[in-house]
Amino acid sequence: MPIKGLTNEQAAMVQHIKLLKQQAGSHSPSLFTIKEQLPDLKMNIDACFLSNPYATDLFLRYFKNELLGDDLLIRDMLEFYPSQNNVIASSLANFLKVPADMLFIGNGAIEIIQAVIHNFTTEKIIVNIPTFSSYYEFVQPGVSIVFNKLKKENDYKLDVNDLLQLVNYEKPDTVVLINPNNPNGGYITKAEIAELLEGLKNVRTVLLDESFIHFAFENEAMELMSYADMVMKYPNVVTIKSMSKDFGIAGIRAGYAIMHPSRAKQLLENGFLWNSNGLAEYFFKLYVRDQFQKEYEVERKRYIRDTQEYFKNLSAIEGLKRYPSQANFALIELKTGITADDFAFGLLVKSGVYTRTCSDKIGLEGEFVRLASRSHDENEEIIKAIKEAL
Amino acid sequence: MPIKGLTNEQAAMVQHIKLLKQQAGSHSPSLFTIKEQLPDLKMNIDACFLSNPYATDLFLRYFKNELLGDDLLIRDMLEFYPSQNNVIASSLANFLKVPADMLFIGNGAIEIIQAVIHNFTTEKIIVNIPTFSSYYEFVQPGVSIVFNKLKKENDYKLDVNDLLQLVNYEKPDTVVLINPNNPNGGYITKAEIAELLEGLKNVRTVLLDESFIHFAFENEAMELMSYADMVMKYPNVVTIKSMSKDFGIAGIRAGYAIMHPSRAKQLLENGFLWNSNGLAEYFFKLYVRDQFQKEYEVERKRYIRDTQEYFKNLSAIEGLKRYPSQANFALIELKTGITADDFAFGLLVKSGVYTRTCSDKIGLEGEFVRLASRSHDENEEIIKAIKEAL
Repeated sequence: MPIKGLTNEQAAMVQHIKLLKQQAGSHSPSLFTIKEQLPDLKMNIDACFLSNPYATDLFLRYFKNELLGDDLLIRDMLEFYPSQNNVIASSLANFLKVPADMLFIGNGAIEIIQAVIHNFTTEKIIVNIPTFSSYYEFVQPGVSIVFNKLKKENDYKLDVNDLLQLVNYEKPDTVVLINPNNPNGGYITKAEIAELLEGLKNVRTVLLDESFIHFAFENEAMELMSYADMVMKYPNVVTIKSMSKDFGIAGIRAGYAIMHPSRAKQLLENGFLWNSNGLAEYFFKLYVRDQFQKEYEVERKRYIRDTQEYFKNLSAIEGLKRYPSQANFALIELKTGITADDFAFGLLVKSGVYTRTCSDKIGLEGEFVRLASRSHDENEEIIKAIKEAL
Repeated sequence: MPIKGLTNEQAAMVQHIKLLKQQAGSHSPSLFTIKEQLPDLKMNIDACFLSNPYATDLFLRYFKNELLGDDLLIRDMLEFYPSQNNVIASSLANFLKVPADMLFIGNGAIEIIQAVIHNFTTEKIIVNIPTFSSYYEFVQPGVSIVFNKLKKENDYKLDVNDLLQLVNYEKPDTVVLINPNNPNGGYITKAEIAELLEGLKNVRTVLLDESFIHFAFENEAMELMSYADMVMKYPNVVTIKSMSKDFGIAGIRAGYAIMHPSRAKQLLENGFLWNSNGLAEYFFKLYVRDQFQKEYEVERKRYIRDTQEYFKNLSAIEGLKRYPSQANFALIELKTGITADDFAFGLLVKSGVYTRTCSDKIGLEGEFVRLASRSHDENEEIIKAIKEAL
């Protein structure tokens, strides 16, 4: 069943995109790829893309003023070797209030996920599903993967006792916690994290992925949440942080991890020499500046307020269920009989709104699409397009 | 013994830089680091940095025209996820005349060196020394390293028979060939490469690093050399190519490897998902364009001619010996009794010329400094500064 109001030509384009999706495997085909293959397609809004657009604007203002002036300082960032991993770590350490030797700088969080799983996971990993697929795809041959299936009747929220029971039974060497979780946005509260980490303290490695934590809040002031300091108390914890989401700079590739110094040392001893590029180094230096932080906080809160409004409007649409989320995206379940692929690619072709079908996500029962929150105006257009489509 | 004409203050700065050098280990401290620590230091010429400055200028012209216009297309490269590894490989495959499934795109050649050695070297590696240190530093615990010591009396040029004899005796699973070699620029001719690869065909992995091959030539027309097509004949060969040297874009982090499809598949199966950044993707797309290639060839040959003149002028300086090189740098041996560190850091402090001391390089007997070829005018200044210093 296609979405409402598709022409024959549009229906053929939907089929073409389904093919690209198959080729891209468990991730969305990139914008570049789709534009190249379907030059006629008009993409207005990328609601696959999980980033704060106001933060991108903020970054761009600094980037233009500081690097694109008459002296074109960006040339230095393109031409010369960037600093080594430990140098960039030093400039972040003060700001994050952790010793520099506990920091590992990554070419995006994805490189850190790969490095940690390849080097520290040797026997068995427990992953809550649905999840970000790299957490089980990057596991090396010979390592067992155990899925902790989050329950649909519990809105796919993590149940602390369920997970701890499974860990006691399976005795994995690695447990993955993503907070808020991707693709559903389910949030683990501060109290639950404390309970979890205490219960997991005998597991060799606990990965705590906080890539979406800047969008979560527990009080009205929307203060920044983070449990990264837990690494100081629990040396088995590795905190992973992408910068692509909160700062909207996925093309720069920047992320970091906080881990026990012996682990960082092990990774850096035989690799990861110049794994940051010049613009990533510029970003990290900007990130720790007071003025930038002050302006970022304004944009972060503005984006959270817009996102909350968007979530409310999504909930009001008939024919779908919106799941609870503390991230900058919401999982919706389609209840009208349409498949997730037909909905997502139909919406793209008809209205130029690109959303993330979850047809490839294991652990979801039903037809699910993940919708990113974009700018206020774009969110309104997304709502309008969905209403027309269903 | 310091270089000629240093003040006390300058001598103290030399000591400070020696300390930074110790901290940076087996690589030079980055320009950023030195500038941060010694704000008073005037660095005029970076003759550590192995790149064609004319190619950087060429790239910058395209970059400015295409990405920094009123529509600021660079925003797309910063904001959005880059394409996955196999997509970038596809756009390179035609140009390189190899199937896309034999290409692996790296976050700089250094990521490829790491990936190949971590994944395919399990027992014993033979490395010709002097060499680029990562080739032995990235070897994982438990792997034996055997050094094939290039002979000083042979000007550190690789002797094919010596290496083949050592390989027969040691039976390594990996042999590293860098052509031209770093840090001396020693060149392996086409005929020698053919003999070597035939003799090494029973070794599991032969790494052929061609990061400096664009500066080598065997005829007067200075036609581009490359033995990358050897991978088609010898499936055990992995060719590694940095783009930082010939295009002068080390800050972008771009490199590629040609390898047997089963190896590329193994690497991509559980990692390296978004390991290129947006600007690296832009660079690779530019790299394969006819017009850019045509203009690049002009700049490549111009730079080779300048480099040859520079080499000739270096040879004429008394108190040093210049070693034969087909790369864009020359190794010089200091014969006046000064140490390499005192010479290199003295030259930096006194004349603002930053050269690469080889005091940390294993396999060199004597006091050696590596001098990059820069632009024509800069090369003249380097020559002048060295003459004053000795």
